[in-house]
Amino acid sequence: MKISLERAALLQTLGHLQSVVERRNTLPILSNVMISAEDGSLTFTVTDLDLQATEVIPAEVISPGKTTISAHMLFDIVRKLPDGSQISMTLDNGRMTIAAGRSRFTLPVLAPDEFPVIVPGDLPNEFTLSAEDLGGILGRSRFAVSTEETRYYLNGIYIHTVDDTLFAAATDGHRLARIKIKRPEGAGDIDGAIIPRKAVGEILKVIDDFETDVKIALSSSKMRIEMGNLVFVSKLVDGTYPDYARVIPSGNDKVFKIAAQDLERAIDRVSTVATEKTRAVKVSLDKNILQLTVNSVDMGVANEELAIDYTGDGVEIGFNAGYLRDILKQCSNSDVEVAIGDPTSPVLIRPQNDTDDWFILMPMRV
Amino acid sequence: MKISLERAALLQTLGHLQSVVERRNTLPILSNVMISAEDGSLTFTVTDLDLQATEVIPAEVISPGKTTISAHMLFDIVRKLPDGSQISMTLDNGRMTIAAGRSRFTLPVLAPDEFPVIVPGDLPNEFTLSAEDLGGILGRSRFAVSTEETRYYLNGIYIHTVDDTLFAAATDGHRLARIKIKRPEGAGDIDGAIIPRKAVGEILKVIDDFETDVKIALSSSKMRIEMGNLVFVSKLVDGTYPDYARVIPSGNDKVFKIAAQDLERAIDRVSTVATEKTRAVKVSLDKNILQLTVNSVDMGVANEELAIDYTGDGVEIGFNAGYLRDILKQCSNSDVEVAIGDPTSPVLIRPQNDTDDWFILMPMRV
Repeated sequence: MKISLERAALLQTLGHLQSVVERRNTLPILSNVMISAEDGSLTFTVTDLDLQATEVIPAEVISPGKTTISAHMLFDIVRKLPDGSQISMTLDNGRMTIAAGRSRFTLPVLAPDEFPVIVPGDLPNEFTLSAEDLGGILGRSRFAVSTEETRYYLNGIYIHTVDDTLFAAATDGHRLARIKIKRPEGAGDIDGAIIPRKAVGEILKVIDDFETDVKIALSSSKMRIEMGNLVFVSKLVDGTYPDYARVIPSGNDKVFKIAAQDLERAIDRVSTVATEKTRAVKVSLDKNILQLTVNSVDMGVANEELAIDYTGDGVEIGFNAGYLRDILKQCSNSDVEVAIGDPTSPVLIRPQNDTDDWFILMPMRV
Repeated sequence: MKISLERAALLQTLGHLQSVVERRNTLPILSNVMISAEDGSLTFTVTDLDLQATEVIPAEVISPGKTTISAHMLFDIVRKLPDGSQISMTLDNGRMTIAAGRSRFTLPVLAPDEFPVIVPGDLPNEFTLSAEDLGGILGRSRFAVSTEETRYYLNGIYIHTVDDTLFAAATDGHRLARIKIKRPEGAGDIDGAIIPRKAVGEILKVIDDFETDVKIALSSSKMRIEMGNLVFVSKLVDGTYPDYARVIPSGNDKVFKIAAQDLERAIDRVSTVATEKTRAVKVSLDKNILQLTVNSVDMGVANEELAIDYTGDGVEIGFNAGYLRDILKQCSNSDVEVAIGDPTSPVLIRPQNDTDDWFILMPMRV
């Protein structure tokens, strides 16, 4: 195996792939990227056994071959080489030599036949989504994904279709995001596919590099996401997502609108005196006024008033300041409509922009 | 006490002072900033018992007074308030109220008479240095200051005068920086003043905000540094600095010059394969060629050649790659002269710029 290619292309590809590779692995080969050279192109593959990413780039293949070397080491080497370098990679005597200019690196390899490839199997439900739509539904719901390992079925974004609509939902039990878009043309019914948190993060990391449509293919246990020359194959979370529609409130009658950014910044200010433990902010609604209060025994009291258009009943309700700010950050540069019921019921927050996003937040006692 | 002032001025002052205050303190009052209001000005003081910083800013003083409140909390509040805010601070009923726009914060206070003030005492040796000179001597030697608590006398930058010259030295036993400038006019003899690491860091953090001359005053145990309205008073490290001149090599005969940045980047590249533990790079000098090699059992081999003007004897010598890069970073945008003796003797590195800096690096076995 002997190949030659430009640093820039290799750097971009390794930039896409390298974070799939975990820093610590019990199986040494999982630290490696598999490189396969044939017919003027190189194929790079990385995996963590649940998520696999593959990218193909053109290269001058002087002699074909296949091997695996440390993914993070290769990325670091290529990153540090001067801009514009021409890089050669030569497999010889069970070692890979990477050379550019007057730099030369010789790295140990592991046999490619030990590299665990995820076979996607039959993926009957195939459809296309714009990179913008996919980035939007994952990007605006990701913050609500649970990190709690005990409820593993919440550790991802839940995608499903209902009639003409595709929904993406994420929740950790305290807050919920529900993103709604038109069902993509040609998409079959999606009963419920939970995309794991890490796959969501990796897709969002690279999606801005692609302006093309994204090809998605699903089975009940795996998914394939193809953008340009980059393909992710991911296992889906094997679990049953709770019926989140149950917690969406419908009769909340205390409703006001406010600029998301103004409210977010005001909460940030008053929560300066919140203790790290509770981070509770009290929201008091009264005639044309919204009052935010944080009261901490040791640290002091903070409050701020915001003018709103409101003539309904007064109410006092508490929230985790961080959770409320997370939601408002998804709605920035837009007004939000906040619909409160009673102080113990979930609150519905909807940005007044061209999305149909719903965010639900559980109150906390203050 | 009641005062009013603009956010920008208060933010800059608290930005200068807040990092003197440690995050965790056994004495609660050490978390606080002392605020004293009188005659159209506010004086802010913070301390960690070794280093004290005071800054005076003009303000509208409606009624004078003195108190202490949490320094980090005040900084966070002011930071988060909108640009252009007018801030009022009112001491009432044993609590401080900070108000701006429709935001209001009420913070607990501690009595100012418990605030531990460092009395600088008599500081007979007074002189002036440009902010640029002070920033230079501290900034270019700081990297070599030891962080090892057992040899506490190395935990600072050692300043002393010899005839017409002022020297600043720092070492951790592995590398040494010696900065040399003309003795400031009017400065008395400095027998040896060790400026503690934290004071060095705080001075360097703020010095770019000042273009004025810096007034320095020293006794054998304390120093006072005044720039604009900001005054630091610091205890000096109470110890005897070793006679560092002993380790400065004089007969090193294997000498070459190279662009500091080229060498620094090449070392960065080859040390990609170095283990985190040793980080050793081998430097081989031969006719008109410098070769860098890192050889790691698990991770592979890297080498790079650099063309130099050299006709002396060949030599192989090892260095800690990180230490050598630290030195070269102090010389960037300049050539350096590297003078090697034998593989076990210290090496002298001198930037070929308008400074008279000397850097000394101990070799390591490779």
